[in-house]
Amino acid sequence: MTDFVLHPQLAKDGIWLGDFELCRVLLINDSQFPWLVLVPMEDDIADIYQLDNCQQAQFWRESKRVSEALMDLYQGDKLNLAALGNVVPQLHVHHVVRFHDDPLWPQAIWGQLPLKAYSPEQRAKQVSQIQQALQAHWQVVAES
Amino acid sequence: MTDFVLHPQLAKDGIWLGDFELCRVLLINDSQFPWLVLVPMEDDIADIYQLDNCQQAQFWRESKRVSEALMDLYQGDKLNLAALGNVVPQLHVHHVVRFHDDPLWPQAIWGQLPLKAYSPEQRAKQVSQIQQALQAHWQVVAES
Repeated sequence: MTDFVLHPQLAKDGIWLGDFELCRVLLINDSQFPWLVLVPMEDDIADIYQLDNCQQAQFWRESKRVSEALMDLYQGDKLNLAALGNVVPQLHVHHVVRFHDDPLWPQAIWGQLPLKAYSPEQRAKQVSQIQQALQAHWQVVAES
Repeated sequence: MTDFVLHPQLAKDGIWLGDFELCRVLLINDSQFPWLVLVPMEDDIADIYQLDNCQQAQFWRESKRVSEALMDLYQGDKLNLAALGNVVPQLHVHHVVRFHDDPLWPQAIWGQLPLKAYSPEQRAKQVSQIQQALQAHWQVVAES
């Protein structure tokens, strides 16, 4: 895991919140949706089914943790979860909180709208809220 | 589980292949993509994180099984996995085999193109291939 390198596109779009046991956790810098991405810190994995059984179990524990925290924090109407990776081959799994009045409801969000970056104040607030909600689980917390 | 009723939209779009221990398995009737949907046969569940730990573990075993079978059968370039449910609230998880030369690569497929039904011959072939690939795992096999 020490050799893990985040794909440049994910590094560009995401704000690093911290690392769980298996996954790096990124907040996508898009103020239109509360949107986290989990990236297993393993090389050369493109699809979830390629994780071994133990990693896969850990992955879904971390996914559940993030899903519950997001829905609890933002009181969303629906969670959208997706592993696509057609453009960025490094395995990364989207967790997006959706609302009946969000800009794309009920469509899927991928490839529809450009990202709309958080303001510095919004960004600091989002980062701190989510880091706190998950505080029991970080192995590494990113400094903002 | 005896009270399980499939959402009418899923019943319309999907061809029932059979049931695993937890999930009903549907082949979406769209000849543009090899596309299975897993529907946990539990009432009132909208999101994966709402399954209990045991069901969730079973769900991901079934998902892995289906993912490997599809990628092995169709030799796809990428698997796309998604739980959206913004339109159909019953939890259902898409497993879509993608190819570099498919009609929407590299875009996500949801909401982009109308379904293009299989011909009766294609349909019979797909159903039988996938049922066979998963034959060790059916609790119930649908008759075609």
